[in-house]
Amino acid sequence: MRYLIGVDIGGTNIKLALVDKKARLRGRKTFSTTSFEGKSDLIDGIVSQIKALVSGAGLSKNNIIGVGIGAPGAVDIRTGTVHYLTNIPDWREVPLGNILKKRLGLPVFVDNDVNVMALGEVYFGAGIGAVNMLCITLGTGVGGGLILDGKLYRGSSYAAGEFGHVPINISGPKCKCGSWACVEAYAGNNYIVKDVIADIRKGAKTLITKLVKGDLSKITPEIISEADRKGDRFAKKVWTDVGNKVGIGLAGVVNLLNVEKIVIGGGVAEAGKILFDSIKKTINARAMKLPAKTVRIVKAKLGYDAGLIGAATLVLYELGKENVTKN
Amino acid sequence: MRYLIGVDIGGTNIKLALVDKKARLRGRKTFSTTSFEGKSDLIDGIVSQIKALVSGAGLSKNNIIGVGIGAPGAVDIRTGTVHYLTNIPDWREVPLGNILKKRLGLPVFVDNDVNVMALGEVYFGAGIGAVNMLCITLGTGVGGGLILDGKLYRGSSYAAGEFGHVPINISGPKCKCGSWACVEAYAGNNYIVKDVIADIRKGAKTLITKLVKGDLSKITPEIISEADRKGDRFAKKVWTDVGNKVGIGLAGVVNLLNVEKIVIGGGVAEAGKILFDSIKKTINARAMKLPAKTVRIVKAKLGYDAGLIGAATLVLYELGKENVTKN
Repeated sequence: MRYLIGVDIGGTNIKLALVDKKARLRGRKTFSTTSFEGKSDLIDGIVSQIKALVSGAGLSKNNIIGVGIGAPGAVDIRTGTVHYLTNIPDWREVPLGNILKKRLGLPVFVDNDVNVMALGEVYFGAGIGAVNMLCITLGTGVGGGLILDGKLYRGSSYAAGEFGHVPINISGPKCKCGSWACVEAYAGNNYIVKDVIADIRKGAKTLITKLVKGDLSKITPEIISEADRKGDRFAKKVWTDVGNKVGIGLAGVVNLLNVEKIVIGGGVAEAGKILFDSIKKTINARAMKLPAKTVRIVKAKLGYDAGLIGAATLVLYELGKENVTKN
Repeated sequence: MRYLIGVDIGGTNIKLALVDKKARLRGRKTFSTTSFEGKSDLIDGIVSQIKALVSGAGLSKNNIIGVGIGAPGAVDIRTGTVHYLTNIPDWREVPLGNILKKRLGLPVFVDNDVNVMALGEVYFGAGIGAVNMLCITLGTGVGGGLILDGKLYRGSSYAAGEFGHVPINISGPKCKCGSWACVEAYAGNNYIVKDVIADIRKGAKTLITKLVKGDLSKITPEIISEADRKGDRFAKKVWTDVGNKVGIGLAGVVNLLNVEKIVIGGGVAEAGKILFDSIKKTINARAMKLPAKTVRIVKAKLGYDAGLIGAATLVLYELGKENVTKN
């Protein structure tokens, strides 16, 4: 049997896993990103942990097809260059792919974290069979990955898919990207929570206040969802509003790209039916009839391990040279 | 020598041309769409006019590589089915491509009018060399065509590219598509003129009123541009505002698709530098740094004959099976 290695590099955690060709995890390791002292220490850590994963499973290098890595931001896939890494200050324009290829003697592929999640979903999750698809993650950031004409679409400087920074209003709240009124500036975790706190301070009556025992700094999307499940009107309106904002951005995507599927993952997607219903309602109101009728809005399936499975899938995608919709 | 036939079917006019492989027009005909009595008469007319074009140039069927047709709306390219034609009421779901193929004994390809313009621009115009490109037309409608990864991108039901119906605000003016606050609802000819008339009625002082001798129904984008060229502040603000609205929509496209080129054609594009400067300014303010740095905003080059040349180019694209960026 031959296996894949998936590596999911995030600002908070770095996860590694040994994955079989059917996307089943056969071994995994998770580290805090801050536990590494800097660039060299992090690279050494990835190398030694990959070796430990392989030997720990009683395998050797010959059992490994390749290593796939998902990392934040635009990744130059020709060299596997990751431009920045939050929490690793001396990380600047590091050709991680080329470095690991040499050190491991294995094929190594690096791509944007949401791009690899899109691949994972289209090979093994909610996107199976889709030829044109947008995969979005609703979390602290709002990210996107595009499968177009059966292939991962990366754009002219590997920066495509930034659904979170599609503007949905002429004016509006400042976004961390430097612009304003982006989807993320309404639907990113921190923005949702900030708006809820502001509303409560202005006198909004909601169960949320009781659930956090008055400590508004404890409000999270999960707490808002808990209040919603208990019938809280204010919480319902929060998710309906977030769904509307995400839906406006998606209506633009539906009209522009006529995708057949939109896969939605990330923590905020756990808000569930009320959020999805609002998204669908807005798309039906604001997208054109034919493309609105064509598109299916579905929840991501790979959950917590989406990044790891996606990273491993990148190896299949790159080496398979096959249309990603075929398994 | 072998030639192409290009046919540009619009709501107002139907244009046909004999075109050589370097996109030079060797003969042309134009008819009013309303001069045909209905579906059958229109199809008969296209067949006889193509034959007349060929024989009039002293050529025979053997000299013709194929026929390319651009038509409004989503076109099912498998059968060449055009769903609706304004001004031809009995036209419903007509498989024009299949019908003409049989009647002419030639390869016939049909696609959306802005899709073929995008092909024309990428083969012979402002888009030469572009791998990822959006081509938009600013006219009565605002249309779009996408070249992605070197190929015409059509979407899952051949409806992709509707840049004019990307929403750019949460609320806003009604759009003819049924939604509101679409790019077209701010930047379409009629919407621009309607807003100008409303402003003048509310007391705005502008040279435009003098140029139309007080008859506000005579206001056109050309008149607004004439006033702008003569230094009229109000007219300048009109184009700056339109550029801002188009720029917001394009910022979303730049972030989502990371295209390297945006080609802008159509009558409103004639407003020139003031419009383009405003579009660029908005993209720089509202798109992310890397994709904003990557994209070039340029004026379409094929002008009045873009539809005809694009239609002929469709034949080269479909038969060439080559990457469209190669000539």
